[in-house]
Amino acid sequence: MADQVKATNITWHHGDIIREDREKSNGHRSLVLWFTGLSASGKSTLAQAVQTILFERGSKTYVLDGDNVRHGLNKDLGFSPADREENIRRIGEVSKLFSDAGIIVLTAFISPYRADRDKARAINGDSFVEVYVQCDLGVCEERDPKGLYKKARAGQIPEFTGISAPYEAPENAELVIDTSAETLEESAAKVVAYLEKRGLFSV
Amino acid sequence: MADQVKATNITWHHGDIIREDREKSNGHRSLVLWFTGLSASGKSTLAQAVQTILFERGSKTYVLDGDNVRHGLNKDLGFSPADREENIRRIGEVSKLFSDAGIIVLTAFISPYRADRDKARAINGDSFVEVYVQCDLGVCEERDPKGLYKKARAGQIPEFTGISAPYEAPENAELVIDTSAETLEESAAKVVAYLEKRGLFSV
Repeated sequence: MADQVKATNITWHHGDIIREDREKSNGHRSLVLWFTGLSASGKSTLAQAVQTILFERGSKTYVLDGDNVRHGLNKDLGFSPADREENIRRIGEVSKLFSDAGIIVLTAFISPYRADRDKARAINGDSFVEVYVQCDLGVCEERDPKGLYKKARAGQIPEFTGISAPYEAPENAELVIDTSAETLEESAAKVVAYLEKRGLFSV
Repeated sequence: MADQVKATNITWHHGDIIREDREKSNGHRSLVLWFTGLSASGKSTLAQAVQTILFERGSKTYVLDGDNVRHGLNKDLGFSPADREENIRRIGEVSKLFSDAGIIVLTAFISPYRADRDKARAINGDSFVEVYVQCDLGVCEERDPKGLYKKARAGQIPEFTGISAPYEAPENAELVIDTSAETLEESAAKVVAYLEKRGLFSV
């Protein structure tokens, strides 16, 4: 009986579950893959493709993008410089929570300001991997899947990145992906190869 | 060669990974266990204890509490009614992201206003489980692990729940836990029993 109580106590007192416990349980380290680039550069598509590969390998992943963040957590924010800054700050903080939870989190946001991305990097430390999804403005504008560039050119969308608002390209991104020159398969494979090289799957 | 391309295409086009895929991979459903109660009622302790049990059973879990939210995502918010509302709104939205990611998320915040908790419930739908961590103010004040009640009584902390700010107890919580009458083991077992009864581990 005394033994049983002791055994129970061990469970309660071995401390709270921490990131390393989760990583061990998941079989991989966690980190933040921060995709940045112009609208229509292919950030979300690439993030989803990488996630699919990782998920099918049994990894625990999650994609944060406009669909699940802009309509929820950050629905109170617009596109002014101040709101963009707060948008990225919150995404950086949520990314930290996800990586602390043992998840490989992939964020797909334009995140046009270098200073804001650097803050997200500072919040996440070594876990932060910047992936510059490079694509010429002309190519993005030709793709224009949602017709946003057309509207921006017509002056119907103010402060549109690349047209009426700046995009500050990364200078020291861990990865640069050129989606105008590579297929989606090639780009996704390049990201996964980076993660393998980094030892993400060696816990 | 054509077959290889086809096989690759299947991977790319079977759609993005969704919540149900993650739940199946994790071996359990995801949901939001929302612990509410006075300061020192035992919310965080109980949430951590439940998490430990679930983690040791192989479940994917995460605790959101003051430690990881108030110092990060919500560090721009104070304790005025408006800031408390925004605090809870963001936590409700982040909880939704985590449950969408297949995680059993446990939130441990006073969350004193019924209307704010109801909004968090509305955001999370059927995934939301309110756990009222009941404990007499007198008992909480006697515990006072951080000396906050003492400071609040001395007027050094304004808008302190239970002393100078209201706590609106849940009226229809899925679970009520009385931490002044039960041991931590009993309380945690009660929460886990509820999850089992609800079929959380039958995916």
